[in-house]
Order: sequence, then C-alpha cells, then structure tokens
Amino acid sequence: MATEEQAVRETHEAWMAAVNAGDLARLMTMMADDAVLLNPGGPPLGKAAFPDKFTGGHERFVLRCASEPLEITVAGDLAYTVCRDTLHLVPRAGGDAIELAGHRLSVYRRGPDGRWLLARDAHTLTSV
Amino acid sequence: MATEEQAVRETHEAWMAAVNAGDLARLMTMMADDAVLLNPGGPPLGKAAFPDKFTGGHERFVLRCASEPLEITVAGDLAYTVCRDTLHLVPRAGGDAIELAGHRLSVYRRGPDGRWLLARDAHTLTSV
Repeated sequence: MATEEQAVRETHEAWMAAVNAGDLARLMTMMADDAVLLNPGGPPLGKAAFPDKFTGGHERFVLRCASEPLEITVAGDLAYTVCRDTLHLVPRAGGDAIELAGHRLSVYRRGPDGRWLLARDAHTLTSV
Repeated sequence: MATEEQAVRETHEAWMAAVNAGDLARLMTMMADDAVLLNPGGPPLGKAAFPDKFTGGHERFVLRCASEPLEITVAGDLAYTVCRDTLHLVPRAGGDAIELAGHRLSVYRRGPDGRWLLARDAHTLTSV
C-alpha cells in the first residue's frame, strides 16, 4: 500500500510540474478520458475542454501552482488525495499579481496499464 | 453494485434532508469521525467543528439546499459522488436572499456496520 501511495504522490507531483511547465501534452496523458474537474464559479471541465482552458490560462498569465498533499488514501484501483493549494498569477498584460489559496480533493483511478489517472477533482481556490 | 450505488444515493438524500431540516444529530451519525469538508474561502471543516458551523448557519439563515447526483461510483468500501448543488439563503435578520450554485465532489467510506459515511467533501458553491 505504501508503494501505491507513493505512486499517487509521484503522479500528483508530476501533474503539478506539468501545470507549471505548461506541458499540456503531458497533462492529457495523466487524465482519465472521462475526467471531470470542478471549479468555483465555472462549469465542470471535461478532458475535451481542458486544452483550451489550460492554454488560455498560460497565455494570459505567468502562473505558479503549489500543492501540498495532506492525505493520500489508496483503496484498490481507486485513490483520493486532499491537498492544500496556492496559485500565483501574474498577468502578461501587466497589472497586479493575483494570489489564490484553497484546497483540493482529487480522485484517481488506476488505468489499464497500472498508471494512476486523475479522474475527478474539485478545488476551493479563491482570491486571498 | 447497483444496490450499493442505491445505498449511497439514499445516504446522500438523507444527508440533504437532514441539512434542510436542521437535524444536526442525524448529520453527525452520517459523517466519518475523520471527515474533512472543503469550502471555497474558508478553512477545512472537521467533524468537531461542524456543529458550531452548521448551527450558526441555521441561526443566521433560513436555508434550502438542493443537490442532484450526476454520478455515483462505488469501488469496494469506497465511493464517490459528483453532484450539482444550489443553496438558497434567506437572512433571518432581513435583506435579500442569497443564491449560490456549484458542484460537489464527495468521498464516502463504508463504516464498520456497513453504512456509508461521508468522509471527504469539496464544493465549489459561489454566489450567482
């Protein structure tokens, strides 16, 4: 079990690194095909709509996410994590940086090849 | 499996009914002892802090929650749901009603007696 928890932790770390690097191709390989991401103030985001949203964010902002896992629980082929998140956004057009903080509940599913895939996610990030 | 999904659905419906009825005692029996509830703009809420928060909300507002399950997935002794939520708040002190809308990702764990307990929850409700 500790090994699987470590695998989920590494998946989470790889996700955050890819978010900060703007590596959309990598992120797409880390999401389940039916992934659903829940965000305050917006509609649920599915995998098909993720690229436009992600690319748009990087076009408008220099962004830096940080996400600290507070809990990683694995049960069979399902896992969930609770993380404490911050998001620092600097508008490329100029203006003040935006700081957001909150938490994140994520559900992972083990894929056919044994890798953990992000399946469901809800964050509570709001401006601080 | 369909039976277990139905059991989770009934747990969710019972939870919402108890929220709207102000039935704190019932809600406390439906949460895991280590439950963590994530909310936009506030710190994570544990079971010990839940009564004050819940009672305070009912003291300040006449509230009506609605929550429609979009997905119920059961895997062994773990389950998760994705719901579409609305929250209608009427201040008891007077003033305009407040409408919130968003989604909710919840994780349930089967307790020792076989009942499903709310273990982790994150909602994205914001004013509309």
